[in-house]
Formats: sequence, C-alpha cells, structure tokens
Amino acid sequence: MDKLIRNIRATGAPIALGLDTRIEYLPPEFAANFDLTTLEGAAAAITEFNKQLIARTCDILPAVKVQIAYYEMYGLPGLHAFRETLRWARRHALYTIADVKRGDIGATSAAYSTAYLGQTVLEQPMRLKAFAADSATINPYLGEDGVLPFVEDCKKYDKEIFVLIKTSNPSSAQIQDLHVYRDDDCGERLYQVVGDLVSDWGKDSIGQLGYSRVGGVVGATHPEQGAALRLQLPQTFFLLPGYGAQGATAQDLVGCFDREGGGAIVNASRSLICAWKQHEDMHFADACRLEIQNMQKDIADVLSQAGKVRA
Amino acid sequence: MDKLIRNIRATGAPIALGLDTRIEYLPPEFAANFDLTTLEGAAAAITEFNKQLIARTCDILPAVKVQIAYYEMYGLPGLHAFRETLRWARRHALYTIADVKRGDIGATSAAYSTAYLGQTVLEQPMRLKAFAADSATINPYLGEDGVLPFVEDCKKYDKEIFVLIKTSNPSSAQIQDLHVYRDDDCGERLYQVVGDLVSDWGKDSIGQLGYSRVGGVVGATHPEQGAALRLQLPQTFFLLPGYGAQGATAQDLVGCFDREGGGAIVNASRSLICAWKQHEDMHFADACRLEIQNMQKDIADVLSQAGKVRA
Repeated sequence: MDKLIRNIRATGAPIALGLDTRIEYLPPEFAANFDLTTLEGAAAAITEFNKQLIARTCDILPAVKVQIAYYEMYGLPGLHAFRETLRWARRHALYTIADVKRGDIGATSAAYSTAYLGQTVLEQPMRLKAFAADSATINPYLGEDGVLPFVEDCKKYDKEIFVLIKTSNPSSAQIQDLHVYRDDDCGERLYQVVGDLVSDWGKDSIGQLGYSRVGGVVGATHPEQGAALRLQLPQTFFLLPGYGAQGATAQDLVGCFDREGGGAIVNASRSLICAWKQHEDMHFADACRLEIQNMQKDIADVLSQAGKVRA
Repeated sequence: MDKLIRNIRATGAPIALGLDTRIEYLPPEFAANFDLTTLEGAAAAITEFNKQLIARTCDILPAVKVQIAYYEMYGLPGLHAFRETLRWARRHALYTIADVKRGDIGATSAAYSTAYLGQTVLEQPMRLKAFAADSATINPYLGEDGVLPFVEDCKKYDKEIFVLIKTSNPSSAQIQDLHVYRDDDCGERLYQVVGDLVSDWGKDSIGQLGYSRVGGVVGATHPEQGAALRLQLPQTFFLLPGYGAQGATAQDLVGCFDREGGGAIVNASRSLICAWKQHEDMHFADACRLEIQNMQKDIADVLSQAGKVRA
C-alpha cells in the first residue's frame, strides 16, 4: 500500500472520492448538454462529470474508488466511462480502486484479476490491460483459491486488493456476524475469521510502510467492530465505506486508524459527488472540492483529539 | 424457473453449456481467421465461436451459462462479445444464465440488477436493457439487503437468480463449511444457513412447476452436501457446476435432483467447449454437440438407476 499511503501523506486526506456517478446525480444545467435518452449520451455525461471532479480535486485527494455497478448499469458505453474514469484518475496521479467485489473459483478469479490488475495474454507477444486499476475489491465467500490469483497478480504487477471483511450495509450482520465454532470455541464471528485469512494472505507482501498488499473492507458504520479489527490486523490496510450518506461520522471511524492516524482510507460517494445540491451557487466540482476539504478537517480533528498523529 | 424447467423437459437434458470461452480454447484452424493480437480480434473470434456452438446445439440444449470474467478479461470488446452471446442464445430460445456472482450493498446491488435483469432508466420515457439475461448468479456475503434488489427485479421482470450456497472449488469449505452457532447449537454449517436464507428469499415466488425464482449454486463436487441441501430446500432450483473438467461425475450429482429427476441443471464448460480436442476429426461445434449428447445420456442413466424419473 506504499503508493496509496504516500498519496495520503502528501495530501493529509485519508479520503477516497467514490465515483458512483449516475445520471440522477448530475446537475440539471450540466446534464442538459448531453442526450440522456441513450446509453451513449448518459455515459458521455458521466465521464465528463467525473473528469471535471478529478481535475478540480486531484491536488487535495489521494485516491478515487470507482464502483463498477453504476457503469455496468449503462451497458457497454457505461463500461467505456468506467475505463476512461480510471485512466483519467491515474493520469492525475490518483490511486485507483476498482470497486468490483469480484471473486469466483480459482481459474475464474484469475480471469477477473487479469481484467483489473493484470494483463490479458493475446497471441504472442501481445499483452494488453483490459481495465487498469491500482487495486480492486474482492469477495471472500469462495475461500482462498478464489482470492490467491488476485494476490499473485498483486505481487507480480505491483497492485493491491481490498477483501470484504465486514461491510457497511444494515444486513451485513446476517452472515458476517454469525458466531463460528473454531478451535473448540464459539466466541468468534465469521468476519473475524475472514480477517485472519486476509492477514494471512498478505503476510508475504508487507510494504516499506508497514502494510501488506492485501487490505480489507471494513464498514465505518460498525465503530466497535472496526476498532477491534484494527487491533486484530495490524498490517492490513482498511478501506472504510459508509461515511456521509450511509450515516457514519468521523468519530465512528477513528478506531479503524492506527496510532499514527494511518492504516485506513475513508470512502465517501454521494456526499461528495452530490455536494452541488448543498451549494447551489457553486460549480459542482468546486462544491465537491469544498466537501472534501470539510471531510479532511472533520477526520483530522477527531484523529487529533484521539492523539492519533504522526510523530 | 418455469421457462428453464420447460426447456429442460423439452430437451431431456438438464444441461447448461458453460461458455467460458477464451482464445486458448479456440481450434487453431478457426482462430487463424482472426487477428488475435488485439482485444477486438480476440472478442470477434470468441463471439463467432460461441455463435456456432449455440446454432449447432440449441435444439438439444435448454440453457447456456456465460461466465463474465472471461469476457471482462478482454475489456470492452470482450463485454461486447458477452452481450452478443447472450443475445444470440436468447434468439435461439435458450435460457441464459449470466454468471456474474454480483452482490453489494443495497443501492449498488440494485444497479447490478438493473444491468443484468432489469432496465436502465434514462431520461423519461427511455428505458433500455444493458445486458439482458434470464438469470444471474449472486454472492450472498453481504446479507439480504444485498440480495433483495435482485429478488424484486426477478418478480418485476420475470427473471431468476442463483445464489451461491456451496461452491464447487477446493477451498469452498474454508468459509462455507464453518460451523456456526445458531439457536443454541453448533451443528450447522454456514452454507446451510445461507441455504435457509435462499429458501426464505424465494418463498413469495414459487412458480407453476414448484420452484421459486431464487435458485442456488451447489457444487457438484460435494455429493453428500448436495443431497442434503436437496432435502433441506425442496423449492430451490439448483445450478450445479463442477461436472467434467472440475472432476464431478453424474453419480456425484444424482442426489441434487428431486424425485422426478428435476430441480437442477448441470453446467459443464471446458469439457463441452473444448470437446474438439477429443475429436480431432470433427468440427468443433459437432464435437460439442456429441459431448452434450454423451453428457445427457450419462446423467439420464444415473437418474434412471436412482429411480428419479417423471411419472
């Protein structure tokens, strides 16, 4: 996670801008420039909106998270917008998280990993990148043979993954919080077992700054569980969704950071990309920038109050 | 599952052709017609290969399963091939399973569901289908708010889903077989709990032929667990991967069928689409057809021996 951590340190903002863009989120005066009766027009509008947000915020922002569901929804043009958004973000030196939550049996996970982290092997000697991101989110339900192909590509191509440990949604407890029987004991919950696996999958790839290439997704909506996971997994970098529109506050996520205020990045989507709704007199990209700055201060304040600051 | 069940009865073949096509699986003399040094050329070759397989087998086959990972790997041209393969299969009256294993928080699952089962809402009154399939595979790790958006679309658009219960891969046991503590008891395993959820999610959508719109993925590589799940979930239709190249035999999956030899469909991918490697004198589509017929006989024989035949 060295590149991501360096970006965060440079900006002082442990924040990922979640580009969950859909046409309902576009300001009407901006949207009016596009033909939103076609997938092509909708995708073009989304691409341009994302590009303007990135251009206006990249100096104060370390990373973007692009949730692919909102692009798949617009079909092939939508996936073109997904690819262009990743490219534009990387060109602006942002760390990119492809939020794809993929995971399958080994050979199929290898194909997914090729798509987002690796290189597609064509007729020799051709190799091409399908959707080049710095990292991807991964679903662990199939167990380690569905995760290790991603881990291998992380090492091979200098990439990272974030494995779902404890998600931010209301029903995450239904499966993830089940008590499991392990080592003659029923005291552990499933997400804790997954946490141990995530730690194990990352132990061979600890970077210079102390975190492995295998991070975890930990919902900011579960503050106590997040704090316990921080102690359980000292070398696992956390991606924290749930801040803002999903209800988590900065205070809720302070426990997910390490003693120096590192080890985690907070994603916010709607509260940032729809910030123009709160600031009707501002350009949408300026409104997004302002809300990133507010969010940065909000998080910095609670980290400081908790004594979590770099020496 | 009425459409799928009717297709299976019409052909006598509870078989889904798994179109996990990649350029390494193309016969050299066929591949020579395409420029495989580009993603576009690779995708065109895959599309044409799939179309020929479908055209040559659709009269003896009820369904295709298209694993999207192998298409995402070829980028945007690959996803074009995915969409064209689904279209071609539907045009040939085949039931289509988009093997996408999606699942996320509620709003995001709704976007995925829109992409594969529903309709994308554009500027009114436009609505378009991004990738139209009859059904999709779903990952349950996030719990029910990540699954219910798909269930709603199933009812609204006459579609179905197959939720991962117990997968076919070697490490599926690592998480899915954990003993969970529920109702003062540690006797149950996680996949059984997921099975109960799947049954519950489907209880409002039982079709005329006795099965709900919410099916389950049960690996054919776990015969005893499959048979127990069949008894546990009498109204859940099973998609059974793992036959052939992954090692499961017809005998292994007999327990996953109901008393009339219904309630399940067996997927085979490599053993069918690469059948030309076993029959060098045949056209690849003829070889695939022959192997589907062999597989049909193989399954029909064991079902008959087990007394699982329709009255």
